[in-house]
Parts: sequence; C-alpha cells; structure tokens
Amino acid sequence: MTRTHFSAPSELLDHARELLPRLRDSRPLVQCLTNPVTVNFVANGLLALGATPAMTDVPTEAGPFARVASAVLINLGTPHAEQREAMVEAAAAAHDAGTPWVLDPVAVGALPVRTALAHQLLDHRPTVIRGNASEIRALAGEGAGGRGVDSADSAEEALPSALQLAHGTGAVVAVSGDVDVVTDGETVVRIDNGHPLLTRVTGAGCLLGAAVAAFASTDQHRLSTTVTACTVFAVAAELAVQQRERPGSFAVAFLDALDAITTEDLTERARITMDTASASSGRSA
Amino acid sequence: MTRTHFSAPSELLDHARELLPRLRDSRPLVQCLTNPVTVNFVANGLLALGATPAMTDVPTEAGPFARVASAVLINLGTPHAEQREAMVEAAAAAHDAGTPWVLDPVAVGALPVRTALAHQLLDHRPTVIRGNASEIRALAGEGAGGRGVDSADSAEEALPSALQLAHGTGAVVAVSGDVDVVTDGETVVRIDNGHPLLTRVTGAGCLLGAAVAAFASTDQHRLSTTVTACTVFAVAAELAVQQRERPGSFAVAFLDALDAITTEDLTERARITMDTASASSGRSA
Amino acid sequence: MTRTHFSAPSELLDHARELLPRLRDSRPLVQCLTNPVTVNFVANGLLALGATPAMTDVPTEAGPFARVASAVLINLGTPHAEQREAMVEAAAAAHDAGTPWVLDPVAVGALPVRTALAHQLLDHRPTVIRGNASEIRALAGEGAGGRGVDSADSAEEALPSALQLAHGTGAVVAVSGDVDVVTDGETVVRIDNGHPLLTRVTGAGCLLGAAVAAFASTDQHRLSTTVTACTVFAVAAELAVQQRERPGSFAVAFLDALDAITTEDLTERARITMDTASASSGRSA
Repeated sequence: MTRTHFSAPSELLDHARELLPRLRDSRPLVQCLTNPVTVNFVANGLLALGATPAMTDVPTEAGPFARVASAVLINLGTPHAEQREAMVEAAAAAHDAGTPWVLDPVAVGALPVRTALAHQLLDHRPTVIRGNASEIRALAGEGAGGRGVDSADSAEEALPSALQLAHGTGAVVAVSGDVDVVTDGETVVRIDNGHPLLTRVTGAGCLLGAAVAAFASTDQHRLSTTVTACTVFAVAAELAVQQRERPGSFAVAFLDALDAITTEDLTERARITMDTASASSGRSA
Repeated sequence: MTRTHFSAPSELLDHARELLPRLRDSRPLVQCLTNPVTVNFVANGLLALGATPAMTDVPTEAGPFARVASAVLINLGTPHAEQREAMVEAAAAAHDAGTPWVLDPVAVGALPVRTALAHQLLDHRPTVIRGNASEIRALAGEGAGGRGVDSADSAEEALPSALQLAHGTGAVVAVSGDVDVVTDGETVVRIDNGHPLLTRVTGAGCLLGAAVAAFASTDQHRLSTTVTACTVFAVAAELAVQQRERPGSFAVAFLDALDAITTEDLTERARITMDTASASSGRSA
Repeated sequence: MTRTHFSAPSELLDHARELLPRLRDSRPLVQCLTNPVTVNFVANGLLALGATPAMTDVPTEAGPFARVASAVLINLGTPHAEQREAMVEAAAAAHDAGTPWVLDPVAVGALPVRTALAHQLLDHRPTVIRGNASEIRALAGEGAGGRGVDSADSAEEALPSALQLAHGTGAVVAVSGDVDVVTDGETVVRIDNGHPLLTRVTGAGCLLGAAVAAFASTDQHRLSTTVTACTVFAVAAELAVQQRERPGSFAVAFLDALDAITTEDLTERARITMDTASASSGRSA
C-alpha cells in the first residue's frame, strides 16, 4: 500500500514504522556508485539496516544493473573518469527503467569536475537529492560551495535553494544538518534527531544517502521514504551514543544500532515536524 | 613436509592444526588485487591471521610482484580497466612462476565485464577458485548468475558445477554456503561451521578468498590448505559470535578471533566430512 | 607564535603540548591523495585527531584544492594512472602556494611505477617525507627496497639515508620503526613510544603520514610538528593497547585514543631524545 498524502507529522511517523520492517523483509538490492573513502562503511551500513548492497560501478555493467536494482545511489565523493562514465550510464538507465535513484552531490560547487557532472546527472531526474547546506545551495546555483565535505551553513539556510531545486528537478531534496530538512517543494519536514558524533565519522553522510536510496525502494511516496531514512538514521545515532562516546567505537556502535533499531525506538524518539513551503520560507527569511 | 593423501576427515583436521601455526610462523606475503569496497577488511583480516598483505594492483608492478609473492588473490568485485590489466598480468606471472593464486569470481554470470575477464583468467590456471554457488555455477557455464554478490543457491546444489570446473581447470574449487563444499574433482570435503552473521559483514567472502590464498602458500596439497582456510575462517566466526551479536561489533570481534584462534579451537569445533566425488554426486542428484 | 629553535627534548615536548590543542582548535583541512586500502582509516583517524580530511584526488580538482588546503598528504600505496596525474598536480600546486605537503613513499624501491613517481614528486619539494627504513633508504638511492610495505630494517639503520635525503631535498625526514627517528639534517630526534600492535593494523603508517601533514599546518617549525605528530600517534597507541589487545578492537580503540589523548598523556608518557646529526651518525656507524 502506497500512501499518497500526509497531513500530520504523526502520519509520517506511522509510515516510518511501516517502512522499517518492510525494508528488512524486502532486503532491497541497492546499487552504489560511490567513493573508495567510505564505500566499506556504506556497504556495512546497508547490510546492518537489512538491505543488500552491490557496488557495481564498472561501465557497461553499471547501466544494466541499474535496471534490475531496487534503488541506486550516485555519490560524487571522488569521481574518477571511469566511474563518471558509469554514473551517467546508471542514472540514465535508472531513470529509463523507473528505478529510484539518489544523487549525493559531495563537495559540488567547491570543485569543478563533480560540479559539471552533477548538472549532467540532473538531466536524468534523480528521485531524491541529499546533501549538506553548502552542496544544496551550490547545486541550486547559489553560494560558493563548502570547503570540501564540510558544511558551513545550517540546513535551514539552504531551504530556499532546496525548494528551488525540488521545483526545478521534481526531486525530493534532503538537506542534512543539526536539524535535517526534507522537502518535495510543497511540504517541508524537519527531523530534529541525531548526534554531533556523526560528523566525526567519515561517510556518515554517504551512508545516509544510501539509506535514502534503500527506503526509496519501499514506497512511491518519496517525501515520506526520505523522512523515514533520515529519522531511522538519526535515531540510530542517538541509540549508539548511549553505548559509546568516542568516534572509533561510536562508528561500530552505530552499525549495531542500525541493526537493532525498532519501531518502538522511532515512536519514543522521533522529533518530526511538518510545514508548508510558503510558511517555511517566511520563517527562514 | 607436504602431505600427499588424506583418507579421513581427522587427517585433514590434523593437517589444519599443522598449517595454522605454519602460516603464523612464515608470515606469507599475500598479494591481493581486489575491490575497494572490502580491501581494508581483507588486509586487516590477513594481518590478524598472521599473513602480510600487499595490495599491489598497478600494471607493470603487479606482474613482477606476483613472481615474488607467497600467494596471489584476484577478486573481481569491481574490476575497473586498469585493474583488469593488472589482474591478467599477475595471473600470468603467478602461473609462470609457480606462485599459487586464487580466483574469486565475484558476481560472475550476472555482469558481463567480469564474466569475460574470469574466463580469460582461467587460461592462467588458478590454484583455487572460491565463490558462492551462483558464481561457481555461472563460471562452469550453468545457471543465470546471482543478483550481484548474493547467492540464491546452496553450496551443495553447485557441486556438479564445482566438479566440472575442477576437472576442466585443475583447480581446487571451494563453494561457500551454510555448509562449505571443497573439491579437487575427486574428493569432496564439507565444512559445517560458521555463522549467518558473516553474511551481514561486507567482504567476508573476499577475506575468505584471501585466507585461501594465504594457506595455499603453506603446503602443496591445495585441497587440504583450502579446507584449512575455510575451517579456520568458519570456526573464528563461531568464536566471534560468542562475543558480539550485532554486525558492526561482530566484524571487529571476527578480526580479533582470527588473531586469537588456536589449534585447540579447531579440534573442539571443526565439523569436517569427506566423501568421494561419485558418492557425493549421487547424493546431490 | 612559531618556535625557531629547540635546544632540549623538554622544549619539543612543551611545543607538542601547545600544538595538540592548536590542531584541535584550527581543524586543519588535510587533503589526502592516498590508497583505497587504508583511506577510510586515514580519514577517520584525522577526524578523531580533530582535523578535517578531504580525499580530493581527481585531476584538475586536486591542484586547485591543494592551494587552499591547510596541508596535503601524498601516499604512494596503489598509484593508478589517474591518481598519479592528480598527485603531480597537487604537489606542484602545494609547493607553489606554500601549502605544507608530506610524501609517504610506500614500497618505493621495490616497485617501479611508484619509484619513478616518487623521484618526480621530489622536484616539488615535500615539506616532510615519512616512511619506514627500507623506503627511506631506497628513496635516498640505497638498499634494495622492502618487500612491499614491510620494513626489514630498523629506523636507526636508515639514519644516514635520512640525513642525505634531508640535505638533498630540504625536507624533514621521519623514519618509522620501534623507535621513530626524525631529522631535518642537523638535529636528530628519537621518539621511543608506540606498540607493535600498530603493525598489525593496515594503514597505521598511512595515518601517521596524514597526522604529520595535519600537524605541519600548525607551525612553521616542521621538525617540531613532525616530532609532535609521531609522539601523539605513538602515545595514543600505548593508551589504546591498555584497552584492547587484539588487532580488530585495538584499531577501534586507537581511533578513540586519538580523540581522547590529552597534553597530560604526552607529559607522562613521551620519551623524546635529541642529538646532533654528527653525533648521531657516529653512534649509528
């Protein structure tokens, strides 16, 4: 059953409670074209969550695979030439076959090769775009880009860019920050969960992008699947930090928490709010 | 001293108890040409086991290095163009120099580039081929391949393909599954150890391939060295799951267990059985 | 305030106690062009230490980024063609812009592609060269190189090569071993800290190179910043091994220790000695 409308945060939470077991039951095959820095963490995170990762990024393999995958992640962390070719192939095939795909425009704006590539990939209509505030602003043509993977801005400041990007591309846009902001251009959802230790683990953002892809396979309502991914991810971080407070062991505990997290954890901890784009824009102006 | 014949599972176990300390004493130099997804885990697993990993996969370096290495692993996880060139070079050099080498045909059958490459590599006579049931069936020309790295079949179902592949190539073939099946085409050995959590850690199969390579350097009897690798690996998983039951911390505990495992652990836990190919084929038919 | 002269080990220790909080406050942006084997560990280690890693190694991105980065690491672990191009670009830009940069000549001498590359990179004047004894000897034109990443020699045996390399290039040279040896060609500093378990974790040396780069951004006196990096790193290993004694969990505890280490830990544990080059050469002859 696919939901078509959510009128209250409690309905989004109810849906998240449906989608988490649905993901675990369906074990979606998530193809990731991503960077070597964090690819191991992304694969282990997907496995912990209950998905099936496949890091197929060789040209002529990547496109056909995107047709049969449950979802695709394209992450621009370190886009070397052969991988760029595979990314364009996979995005085109995913769009053509109706496979949901997620664009994670790492460091776009700050660096030229990936910036050109990101704009090329937008032509293939990502289902969801996930980035930090600097990246979302840069992709929307605003701001100077961050210093690499680091975001100087809060997610809220990127809301006008996120709305513009959602309108221009048809994608759901997720901006990561202390409070995550997710919008389809009409509705704006904020998730006030998570923990700063996530920023001390390389690849936390990359793994969130992969989780957004995994959940995008579970339902057609991509605003809701994206909110679910962000909520599960951030609540798992809260569970992990109760176990371990240093970055090395926190990263391990976080993988464990993605495996252990229950729908009850979501009920107890999720702090989701919802707004209309017009009301939100007024607020952030 | 190299064994030449084993007539009972207890003799294989005795040999495993010899080979584990022999590996730790000799610290074999294991060259791995493998994928970025799991290469860190493979290197750390080899170090934990007592081997010396060297991930030399640059063309013109890979071949000469394969001549001096103790063993070579070629894993087709994400075979980009430059790495494919290095793989062919390393396989040819290993074969020419008498260095034992292991082929891990990841996702062969499902994806075209690696499938062609795998068949090209077979010309250089791998010492051992290790894969899951889908991969072994596909490499033997049967079945449709798995969905990426995931195996739909049990190891036992791939036994006819494993026997055919062993006869056709001269390699020992190891099929991973709930029960691992290892054959040289004449004798069939089953190892009924391990734990399902291994399937929740990315690179467990890749690391097993590397362990098979490391042990292949310790003795000429490659059926026995392969059985040893599979047994040590699976028993270590049983030791690890006694410590930690979630995938993130289990992976860490598994590396610790590869370091901690003793010959007594093998004696207490190994469940090895042995059969002739003709009897086994009848059984699986 | 930049120190210009140190006449006693206690002054180096005092400086280390200044530089550790300075690094954490400044969160230096450390660009790493390094190998996929250990890149995740390097990034997490930099984050744990308080730095901001950015693994920008795509040609045409790598050079401009090196101009704005706080420091650059170039590690020759698995130098594929596209990365080699980016490395030369980054080294040239770093030299031109005055960004401190560190060369880690992994397996130089033993393997041809990286050996040629290392000599090419020397033209761009690394600020610091960090390697094991085999690598430093090979880079100075002496010795046959190690067997891959493994060092057959003690750091002390490479001192004549280190002095020669420091004189020839103007770089500070750090030789890793049981006792680390650091020299600017005039002064020789030895750090007698650390633990052998570091050699059982892949990428420990790579991460030390990155830490040397991170600290090089904190002060102009690169002999002292390099000594600080080696000392912090080795003392953190001592703290970690008090927590966990197997390689898998030690690696995690080591990341935690890089986060937890205090200036008091340095005071209590650092074993730094200092000598002149001429006296040291006599001693090692």
